Amino acid sequence: MNERQPARRPGGRSARVGAEVHQAVTDLISERGYGNFTVGEVAARAGVADSSIYRRWGSLESLLTDVALTRLNAQSPMPDTGSLAGDLRAYAANVAREITGPDGLALLRLVIALSSMGQQGLQARDDLLDERTRQLQSMLDRARERGEPAPDAFGVLDHILAPMYIRVLLGRGPLTPDYVDGLVDRLL
Amino acid sequence: MNERQPARRPGGRSARVGAEVHQAVTDLISERGYGNFTVGEVAARAGVADSSIYRRWGSLESLLTDVALTRLNAQSPMPDTGSLAGDLRAYAANVAREITGPDGLALLRLVIALSSMGQQGLQARDDLLDERTRQLQSMLDRARERGEPAPDAFGVLDHILAPMYIRVLLGRGPLTPDYVDGLVDRLL
Repeated sequence: MNERQPARRPGGRSARVGAEVHQAVTDLISERGYGNFTVGEVAARAGVADSSIYRRWGSLESLLTDVALTRLNAQSPMPDTGSLAGDLRAYAANVAREITGPDGLALLRLVIALSSMGQQGLQARDDLLDERTRQLQSMLDRARERGEPAPDAFGVLDHILAPMYIRVLLGRGPLTPDYVDGLVDRLL
Repeated sequence: MNERQPARRPGGRSARVGAEVHQAVTDLISERGYGNFTVGEVAARAGVADSSIYRRWGSLESLLTDVALTRLNAQSPMPDTGSLAGDLRAYAANVAREITGPDGLALLRLVIALSSMGQQGLQARDDLLDERTRQLQSMLDRARERGEPAPDAFGVLDHILAPMYIRVLLGRGPLTPDYVDGLVDRLL
């Protein structure tokens, strides 16, 4: 995301370093929570120099969002089922499963932590949200290109994602399939 | 809320102690954040014995929700304008003003903090949410008694409160009056 190096061969030393740094961040988050460790501690655990991390990611904040996006893209890729109702139902079901899982509010915790990390934190937060919004927007654009009427990305945020997140945050009831599908149907 | 004493005269020693303890909690929250102080520290700052706090509030968790509810009831009382649209618009505008203010996410931070404070924390969280839900429900019941169709309290949570909270949490745009009224109109 904040790649400042020339293109590298996949699977080479750079990919190994990337994987080790990501693992170090994941471990430090689970041990200490967001915002309670430094680039130096990530570097020490991954066995690389601080300067390698700064050169590649620019800041701790950018590194945190890169780790979060990599995880999101692997675990919750945007679905492509052929219909908007199908896509949104699959997407909503995925989010519901993620946020009711063991560390389900990790993404929200990251966003809240970044929000209190000054200008670089806010920038990293916006990069992360912009990237997921772009992915969601592609899904909605595909529907429009097929001739289906589609809400905008903020509609999905406000009326599908927000209710599920707030229900989990407030401990208000399980996110049943009927509830989740109901949010999608109501928006469409 | 967790009053275990017989009825007391307002304005007496008990009211003074209550006010001093509430102030001590408010100060400690702003200095250290939720969950980073003990009943003993509240007592010392308010100049009362620990046992007075336990006798009156039962636990730190209950004390925290009592302080939050007292503040909410003073600053965001449920409106009674004569129509449901008027009530919901006034209520939503109030919440929007509160959560975009200087410590706007305090209530959400409290709920998240209580959620990680074990069984007493979860109980205190549910007491707080149940009390606000009851107040909201009275507003909706008044509308039904006047013959107006009304959504249930979860509809208000999902489609008015949740979008506003998530927008503020994610730093997604100001909550303009048009946006807030739009959420109400869409639900009604």
